[in-house]
Amino acid sequence: MADPILLTPGPLTTSESVKRAMLRDWGSRDTGFIALTARVRAALVKVAGADPARGKGGGDYACVPVQGSGTFAVEASIDSLVPRSAGLLVLANGAYGERIAKIAERLGRRIQIYRTEEHEPPVASDVERLLKADTELSHVVMVHCETTAGILNPLADIADVARRNNRALLVDAMSSFGAIPIDVVTLGLTAVIASSNKCLEGVPGMGFVIARTDALTAAAGNASSLSLDLADQWQYMEKTGQWRFTPPTHVLSALDQAILEFEEEGGVAGRGRRYADNCKVLIDGMTKLGFEPMLSHNLQAPIIVTFRTPADPNYEFEKFYDALRKRGYAIYPGKLTKADSFRIGCIGRIYPKDIEGAIAAVAAVVDELGIKQRGGKAA
Amino acid sequence: MADPILLTPGPLTTSESVKRAMLRDWGSRDTGFIALTARVRAALVKVAGADPARGKGGGDYACVPVQGSGTFAVEASIDSLVPRSAGLLVLANGAYGERIAKIAERLGRRIQIYRTEEHEPPVASDVERLLKADTELSHVVMVHCETTAGILNPLADIADVARRNNRALLVDAMSSFGAIPIDVVTLGLTAVIASSNKCLEGVPGMGFVIARTDALTAAAGNASSLSLDLADQWQYMEKTGQWRFTPPTHVLSALDQAILEFEEEGGVAGRGRRYADNCKVLIDGMTKLGFEPMLSHNLQAPIIVTFRTPADPNYEFEKFYDALRKRGYAIYPGKLTKADSFRIGCIGRIYPKDIEGAIAAVAAVVDELGIKQRGGKAA
Repeated sequence: MADPILLTPGPLTTSESVKRAMLRDWGSRDTGFIALTARVRAALVKVAGADPARGKGGGDYACVPVQGSGTFAVEASIDSLVPRSAGLLVLANGAYGERIAKIAERLGRRIQIYRTEEHEPPVASDVERLLKADTELSHVVMVHCETTAGILNPLADIADVARRNNRALLVDAMSSFGAIPIDVVTLGLTAVIASSNKCLEGVPGMGFVIARTDALTAAAGNASSLSLDLADQWQYMEKTGQWRFTPPTHVLSALDQAILEFEEEGGVAGRGRRYADNCKVLIDGMTKLGFEPMLSHNLQAPIIVTFRTPADPNYEFEKFYDALRKRGYAIYPGKLTKADSFRIGCIGRIYPKDIEGAIAAVAAVVDELGIKQRGGKAA
Repeated sequence: MADPILLTPGPLTTSESVKRAMLRDWGSRDTGFIALTARVRAALVKVAGADPARGKGGGDYACVPVQGSGTFAVEASIDSLVPRSAGLLVLANGAYGERIAKIAERLGRRIQIYRTEEHEPPVASDVERLLKADTELSHVVMVHCETTAGILNPLADIADVARRNNRALLVDAMSSFGAIPIDVVTLGLTAVIASSNKCLEGVPGMGFVIARTDALTAAAGNASSLSLDLADQWQYMEKTGQWRFTPPTHVLSALDQAILEFEEEGGVAGRGRRYADNCKVLIDGMTKLGFEPMLSHNLQAPIIVTFRTPADPNYEFEKFYDALRKRGYAIYPGKLTKADSFRIGCIGRIYPKDIEGAIAAVAAVVDELGIKQRGGKAA
């Protein structure tokens, strides 16, 4: 069976040239690899909108890469950038917000969770009220695109509240970074966190944090973890150009190539346009087949779309998945806690014609399995 | 300039077929990838000597992979397997032992450090005395091959003391696993920790721990980190066959291929024999050229050899490194705290003929740079 097209929140389908960039063994302390690391770090700072050419006043930002998955980079950010005595307001409307809360609690930080339903974005005025009520909540953390439902949370509004109330805002942009514009300078973010294998279309194996250098400086000695100490990783890298501990050299090499292809596609604008096209073809096609997207258009990020589980008793996720998988498409189970669903991603090195192929496969599968009622179950 | 042969402690030169195994995009929740993960985990348990066929009595072991570098897996082991109230005896004769002490201190564990010189192994009777003097030191941790000097520490002797005194022993076998026999069952180890990119000749990006399942069970809720919680990773993997957080799928795929090639070479015995051959050719050749290995033969692991910095004023590491690099060989700086040195590795997908090539390059470079006094500086 040939490799399927991955219609998931990641790992994703990557280009052949990105994968071929891994056919080399780099020495991690070699000058060539030091240059590669510097190139990747500088490019990522720019993707975050912190072009050094834009001058002073907006704060100075640096990219700190972290080995492991995106969650490792999220935990590194909480452990390093949130002082041990600080209060942290966690905005949660899905699994990733809840995971952040769990991480912060494990690390012994005092947290408050502001929850909204999985299909409802946090409301800026509610956040402001919470911050005014508890002035020791010095830090706020949110997920930009929460892939549980596929919702795009209102980053600009929350950033505005954080800025006006003089709080540090950390943003988990795992699934949006590179496809949805984020300007750390204008938004005044303390840190934005993402990974190699989402919208940048590299392979999995590292996360990274674009953080204010003053926050990194202040973070010295704060983390209880050595491996996940962003400040230590940053200082060592600034001094030596090298990673503290063995880097995933092949993953880095793939990311370097992926960033080149990202820039060739027109950066965030170009990448975001292709994903928006993918998303439109997906929603239009699935809607025509009778499936119901969970989210209204204005809340839907062009990253991954959640569809309600069809009411038809012939629908079973495992069978549906397997039948699509046989036709060359890997979709994703739902993650919502209250409504049954499945998910189909729009990201990775895939184009509208691939989505059209997936829709055709879904059409064939619903016939094969006899799924007639494709609208969602009553809640 | 073509890629050099990496004569370092890692990342290493890998086979073309290992690298080519990365030319696929796996879905991390796909049945094929679940099977790959299971295959790799089972193979690693076997490399550690814990063949399930050997029956009961020796304890039951499981492999828990951890995204990131080997240090991440070391930290995960300390944070998970050493109870928060426990005392930990750290055996240190180099940078990696010191790093373990630093990690454990950061994590708030009470530690005692038993230090020996970088060219001297720990003495089992000293360890026993320390354990008898402080009965609350319930856990011991040591580095098997400490690449600071390249020394092979006496694992069997220390394991014997730990067993007789009923203490849990954790072993950082990063640089030895797969090339030097380790039998967790006979030695009664609580955990052995290694990574994908050393003697197994995979690519960097993940570590793993082979741990007693009773220790993993007891570790539930102990770790302060979620990302590095071995017990949580293990339980989730046992239940679902999947990783909790995005795995480095390409790195896993490379490791799967690397293990196949490892088994084809005859496992630990075959791999160890080639490295021993490499090491002999290296020491013989360098000695003939007048260089002085730091360690006596009985202490030298066939992993990486430390040579004293030549007394000749024409020797400068940077120039020496660059001249060898131009000839296609990447060596490594020294890491000893008290004596100037440089290091040349014997591991990775390299053969005695590659080492002969490196020796010829060193001969050409000493001529080119006019390094006449190649014996070590007086201490």
